[in-house]
Amino acid sequence: MKEHRRSVFNGRIISLNLEEHRLPDGRQAEFEIVRHPGGAAVLPLLADGRVVLIRQFRPSVGGMIWEIPAGRLEEGEDPEDCVARELEEETGYRAASWEKLGKMITAVGFCDEVLHLFVARDLEPVPSAPEADEFIQVVPVPLEDALEMVARGEILDGKTQLSLLMYGRDMGF
Amino acid sequence: MKEHRRSVFNGRIISLNLEEHRLPDGRQAEFEIVRHPGGAAVLPLLADGRVVLIRQFRPSVGGMIWEIPAGRLEEGEDPEDCVARELEEETGYRAASWEKLGKMITAVGFCDEVLHLFVARDLEPVPSAPEADEFIQVVPVPLEDALEMVARGEILDGKTQLSLLMYGRDMGF
Repeated sequence: MKEHRRSVFNGRIISLNLEEHRLPDGRQAEFEIVRHPGGAAVLPLLADGRVVLIRQFRPSVGGMIWEIPAGRLEEGEDPEDCVARELEEETGYRAASWEKLGKMITAVGFCDEVLHLFVARDLEPVPSAPEADEFIQVVPVPLEDALEMVARGEILDGKTQLSLLMYGRDMGF
Repeated sequence: MKEHRRSVFNGRIISLNLEEHRLPDGRQAEFEIVRHPGGAAVLPLLADGRVVLIRQFRPSVGGMIWEIPAGRLEEGEDPEDCVARELEEETGYRAASWEKLGKMITAVGFCDEVLHLFVARDLEPVPSAPEADEFIQVVPVPLEDALEMVARGEILDGKTQLSLLMYGRDMGF
């Protein structure tokens, strides 16, 4: 049903198009659409039940925010490989067991980004991992406390809120 | 800490900038950032416990997806006013009671969009509301079924997944 697509921008991370689409009722209209390769995020769980959260500076919101490790898919990359790499780079942990948690479309009104969500267990510190710096701080938090942080509005990042609530629900928390 | 901002696109819905930002550790880098006015979404609850979901055609993903009613903030607009308007336009209901459910940043890696989430109760059909068309279908679903649809991956829209899980948790579902 795609009629026409004009590229406005082609960047490292996103592309922006003006696209004509015909709606199911026959109307035709132009939409501003951000094309994104998709990504993956992981809720990393320590053996003592704590979740490995990160605090990260994000230029989009101009401040540090609470998140879980996540990354953008490279072309043809498996989401689990992508997020295993990001977990190691961002937290210094490697995980031996992985489980799918779900999938989310982050901003369907203007963007096609799909995030694959995972839970990772059996974490081991990676000796050679880069130190956490001022840009990313690694903060393990008990699951119940993290769920409270969602309820109090301290955790605002959508993928992090959703992953915590999905996992908390599965675990009966 | 913002150093420089170059506008790439200024649209009806989003703007795209290339922005230089200094990170907390002193590094400076350029980021592709989508600026969005923010929005609001609402979980509308019928007296019998059903949630009013909508199925909507979304050009970004090229198909119909399950969502809750939502809209983009106009300049200076109160999020509750925004979403009351959208509820009426998209579902034909007006709500007498409103409650804040939370807030989410949808895609923090490249966008500043913040969505305000609400629960609305005491719904009354609006006589003059436009008929649902092929573009938006209104489908009331029992809350437990909607939560199952999230668990099964049938509901993929982030704001809808999160609102259902937040409310389900509050209600002990």
